[in-house]
Amino acid sequence: MVGIGILGYGYWGPNLVRNFLETPGFHVVAVADRNPARLAQVQQRLPGVITTSDEREVWENPQVDAVAIATPVSTHFELAMQCLRAGKHVLVEKPLAATPEHAARLVEEAAQRKLTLMVDHTFVYTPAVQKLKQLISDGSVGETYYYDSVRINLGLFQSDVDVLWDLAVHDLSIIEDIFPDKPVAISAQGLSHVPRGMVDMAYLTLFFSTQMIAHLHVNWLAPVKVRRTLIGGSRKMIVYDELEPSEKIKVYDKGITIDDNPESVHQRRIGYRSGDMWAPQLATTEALRTATAHFLDCIRTGRTPTTDGAAGLRVVRMLEAASRSLQQRGNVVELER
Amino acid sequence: MVGIGILGYGYWGPNLVRNFLETPGFHVVAVADRNPARLAQVQQRLPGVITTSDEREVWENPQVDAVAIATPVSTHFELAMQCLRAGKHVLVEKPLAATPEHAARLVEEAAQRKLTLMVDHTFVYTPAVQKLKQLISDGSVGETYYYDSVRINLGLFQSDVDVLWDLAVHDLSIIEDIFPDKPVAISAQGLSHVPRGMVDMAYLTLFFSTQMIAHLHVNWLAPVKVRRTLIGGSRKMIVYDELEPSEKIKVYDKGITIDDNPESVHQRRIGYRSGDMWAPQLATTEALRTATAHFLDCIRTGRTPTTDGAAGLRVVRMLEAASRSLQQRGNVVELER
Amino acid sequence: MVGIGILGYGYWGPNLVRNFLETPGFHVVAVADRNPARLAQVQQRLPGVITTSDEREVWENPQVDAVAIATPVSTHFELAMQCLRAGKHVLVEKPLAATPEHAARLVEEAAQRKLTLMVDHTFVYTPAVQKLKQLISDGSVGETYYYDSVRINLGLFQSDVDVLWDLAVHDLSIIEDIFPDKPVAISAQGLSHVPRGMVDMAYLTLFFSTQMIAHLHVNWLAPVKVRRTLIGGSRKMIVYDELEPSEKIKVYDKGITIDDNPESVHQRRIGYRSGDMWAPQLATTEALRTATAHFLDCIRTGRTPTTDGAAGLRVVRMLEAASRSLQQRGNVVELER
Amino acid sequence: MVGIGILGYGYWGPNLVRNFLETPGFHVVAVADRNPARLAQVQQRLPGVITTSDEREVWENPQVDAVAIATPVSTHFELAMQCLRAGKHVLVEKPLAATPEHAARLVEEAAQRKLTLMVDHTFVYTPAVQKLKQLISDGSVGETYYYDSVRINLGLFQSDVDVLWDLAVHDLSIIEDIFPDKPVAISAQGLSHVPRGMVDMAYLTLFFSTQMIAHLHVNWLAPVKVRRTLIGGSRKMIVYDELEPSEKIKVYDKGITIDDNPESVHQRRIGYRSGDMWAPQLATTEALRTATAHFLDCIRTGRTPTTDGAAGLRVVRMLEAASRSLQQRGNVVELER
Repeated sequence: MVGIGILGYGYWGPNLVRNFLETPGFHVVAVADRNPARLAQVQQRLPGVITTSDEREVWENPQVDAVAIATPVSTHFELAMQCLRAGKHVLVEKPLAATPEHAARLVEEAAQRKLTLMVDHTFVYTPAVQKLKQLISDGSVGETYYYDSVRINLGLFQSDVDVLWDLAVHDLSIIEDIFPDKPVAISAQGLSHVPRGMVDMAYLTLFFSTQMIAHLHVNWLAPVKVRRTLIGGSRKMIVYDELEPSEKIKVYDKGITIDDNPESVHQRRIGYRSGDMWAPQLATTEALRTATAHFLDCIRTGRTPTTDGAAGLRVVRMLEAASRSLQQRGNVVELER
Repeated sequence: MVGIGILGYGYWGPNLVRNFLETPGFHVVAVADRNPARLAQVQQRLPGVITTSDEREVWENPQVDAVAIATPVSTHFELAMQCLRAGKHVLVEKPLAATPEHAARLVEEAAQRKLTLMVDHTFVYTPAVQKLKQLISDGSVGETYYYDSVRINLGLFQSDVDVLWDLAVHDLSIIEDIFPDKPVAISAQGLSHVPRGMVDMAYLTLFFSTQMIAHLHVNWLAPVKVRRTLIGGSRKMIVYDELEPSEKIKVYDKGITIDDNPESVHQRRIGYRSGDMWAPQLATTEALRTATAHFLDCIRTGRTPTTDGAAGLRVVRMLEAASRSLQQRGNVVELER
Repeated sequence: MVGIGILGYGYWGPNLVRNFLETPGFHVVAVADRNPARLAQVQQRLPGVITTSDEREVWENPQVDAVAIATPVSTHFELAMQCLRAGKHVLVEKPLAATPEHAARLVEEAAQRKLTLMVDHTFVYTPAVQKLKQLISDGSVGETYYYDSVRINLGLFQSDVDVLWDLAVHDLSIIEDIFPDKPVAISAQGLSHVPRGMVDMAYLTLFFSTQMIAHLHVNWLAPVKVRRTLIGGSRKMIVYDELEPSEKIKVYDKGITIDDNPESVHQRRIGYRSGDMWAPQLATTEALRTATAHFLDCIRTGRTPTTDGAAGLRVVRMLEAASRSLQQRGNVVELER
Repeated sequence: MVGIGILGYGYWGPNLVRNFLETPGFHVVAVADRNPARLAQVQQRLPGVITTSDEREVWENPQVDAVAIATPVSTHFELAMQCLRAGKHVLVEKPLAATPEHAARLVEEAAQRKLTLMVDHTFVYTPAVQKLKQLISDGSVGETYYYDSVRINLGLFQSDVDVLWDLAVHDLSIIEDIFPDKPVAISAQGLSHVPRGMVDMAYLTLFFSTQMIAHLHVNWLAPVKVRRTLIGGSRKMIVYDELEPSEKIKVYDKGITIDDNPESVHQRRIGYRSGDMWAPQLATTEALRTATAHFLDCIRTGRTPTTDGAAGLRVVRMLEAASRSLQQRGNVVELER
């Protein structure tokens, strides 16, 4: 059994605890939170689990082999570093850290100590995104033309992160995972509508070295909730709608055909191909369960997690570059490779 | 009766002819097109109308008081200028001209000759857009936060204009019309996926001097057809879906409320307001009929058209600036005021 | 060339004329209507076509080989009979006649004279219904469990027929066409909400000798327009939504599985099968064009139309039985075989 | 504090327990279930609650003032009667009992003992249905023309009740609650598609003494989940879609207008009124919480519950009549008043 401690029992912590409890192989040892009311909840629900307001007691506990961190982003680096130094495997909520430097140091620390460092990019573990990844990697989509995502709703305004770090992080982690090519530059534009408030809506463009572009619209100020991604490819086009109860992914056999006119190099005939649509049946597994099981497997085998520290670092670099671009009305920021 | 001549009987010309025929006060005198097959169609359908392959015969005809131009964009300037010089009132298809310089010269020529120059920004005359304009001007929306439009579908690739000049022009003419503030800068990003082809998808951002932003997604390579605009305001939020058979406009009594904490200037409590939704009944008048009637009224009274040459020029300036920005991966281009 | 005459130029007549004009092999000879304004329209649009307010002039014209009848239902029998007696092939708008007796006499007359008698059950010629028929006949659907249709909207109240004869006739003609089994009994319930008015909403059930049932909801008094049919089968289930711009037909690989418990004949384990969904690409051919081409082919070859007089008679029998049942709050009426 | 015991901890029991725990004024004393695994769950989650496999221990416990029954329908009568005889207030899951006779005896017993007998017609306590009731009772809808409900999905086949007793019961309890008029007759048609299985799809019609009709389509064998009710009235028409995340209720200002022609009593002009649509904001209170709070209030004050035994009896009478009608292919069964 792998003893697990959880730091933070706010919005996401209870989901982590529930999934660790239901993943055979994990033993939930301790939960830390600075809010006494939340700790009382843990005590009531899980009498055998240690509760504490001092995070140190978690990573100093010898029964704890691994720690999951679900605290505010600004604390990720400090807590994760302490856990790694105490020899614990670490699962960190997205984003991995508040700066690329911090993220890089965590990656380095975990590598030196040969510990598993995994980021909870939960969407990567959904059956829908796994299907997208498969359709891209097996060539069904063909050459990818674009990834276009709309992720908007009313609220919830966060107090410690803006809409990029709150919502765009989901798409960036998906893009990071499903496409073999990595973005080379980024541009972001956005606004805050609350005096002295966080940026509450933003548009983000990712440039690639290929003929592909990715674009996100993230927004806390929209009248309707939308979670819809379009993927255009030379062979197939996909609509991925997270809010569809079933048929989250629709694959369209549509596209353009280009016939070069043999009589003239300057003329092309562009045609349209419009065939069947197909919605593959998706598993109903909870993404977080897949993630906790994957974390366990990586701890036991030493395998590298799909969403390892390096993936977490790349996402944080994109977020940081996007934030810089946004300050300059979208001037393109090159991404470090 | 105002004698009207029509130049161009391709995609849009027949709609113009039909609406001029059904607008009491207009008399359709002549139709010009270089394609004999199209002229034959006119002859068959409208025996009394003069048909010609030489546009000059239209504006030289003394029975013709006004000319509607529905030819390729690259020909707009030359044809419109000839008509104005011949003393004819002119209605030009959108966009007014291929360059701001040409557009400006048409505006000047019409002004000097005291002729009506109107641009067929058809969407401005739809009951839906007129309702949007009313909701903004009467204060219902409050301070506008953003205009976000998605205008995508598969095809039709144009041979003479790219996706900006084909699709974004609709939103630019709507923005031009419904908002009192004018954009101060523009940024556009896009790609072509056909070798040596036109830009087939683009993202366009308009910056304003106020806390407002406008953003467009236009795309010829999308698996589904979407025509959806969100407008966020301090009092109301709107979803305008052109493809809805009824309820094209939904007005949401939703938003945020900001309570400044009297005990601390650094703390604000952000709340959410979520009330009723309301879909106003819209007239079913055809937009182009409203436009032709308005053109007639302006010719007769000397009134300035809602979509006059100046509006057409502002839209062409935005398109030209967007095209320049797109060449530079979205660097912001300031707009001339 | 087959000379065709059209009786009735109201709502549907112009569609017939347009499609006959565009079907190579037909020559439109004459159009009759009692309304002078409508005849004037024909004269203006089609200078070479004979127009008359006396239907007799159509079937007495030796150039006319076939007649299409698009007049009120109450006149179908008299007009069609005259045309058949004059030796003309006949296409009649749905429903074939106002009573089964009248319909049967038309069938008999056409048979004796070896003339083509076809009913314009237009929906049968839509690409969507043709796909339904194929999926049923090739075994994809398996054993059919049910056909459930909702065909509702606000208006249009008809003055000569009630909602059964106006809307249910569409589903009855589809059912007649796509299922090999014929209904054995019928039941209908409905109401009129206008004093002394026609029945404006009704529910209709068709019983079959197999384990299948069909049910229709037709309504002139609904706030939203719905045209949706569900077909349940042992192998596949289908949703056919006429109002979907694309993807009108969705085929679900869903159903139940029944495992008989080998240890007990009284116990069954019912499981659910939930697989992919598939939306076949459909042709975009206009149904009426397919119908007029089929009419021509039947006239020339002597082949029996898909929607021949016998099919028309069966539909009229169902309508008449439904009307009787409705008078008795839905008491089941057996159908003549 | 009102001591509450719960019989049955299967599908619905945990929801009852959770809501009783969260309703101040209730004290959860004991839970009975014959399945040891379920009792173990209760023990783990709620250490202070008595668990037993013998229901008698619940109603014989002097700390128990009221009992909630969430066991199979066939056991409702026996268990509820024992509880009433032991002097306990009783909340029974829908339907109240398996026969009208049993339901009537429970009503009588509770009345004699002056105990609260309430049926858990949960939908009656949803904000959406409460809004429907208000719109009908305050005259907004006008004269009601029809109630039309589609409640279909794939599964879950029940082993002890058919689709009428499983799904139609929801609509019958809603109709019972929101309309002042009571149905006078009922008709039902349906089929089973599993050998020796329960009826898995059915159509049900309710006749009223007014110009109103109600109709239900319930189905366990549908490819898609639908929960949609239309209500037609002389002043307004309503679409109530339970699956809409927001805007569950849409009120349409649509209808017909009847102008009697003053020159002829035989002619009426039917017109259409088509105005705005309005979606009232609904509370997000959980229906079962409203129900448990109402149960508490009725116990304390002696008030009659909205969904009292008499309402439960009327619903069971409708179900029983529907089952009889279904055996006769829908012959109308008069309802006892």
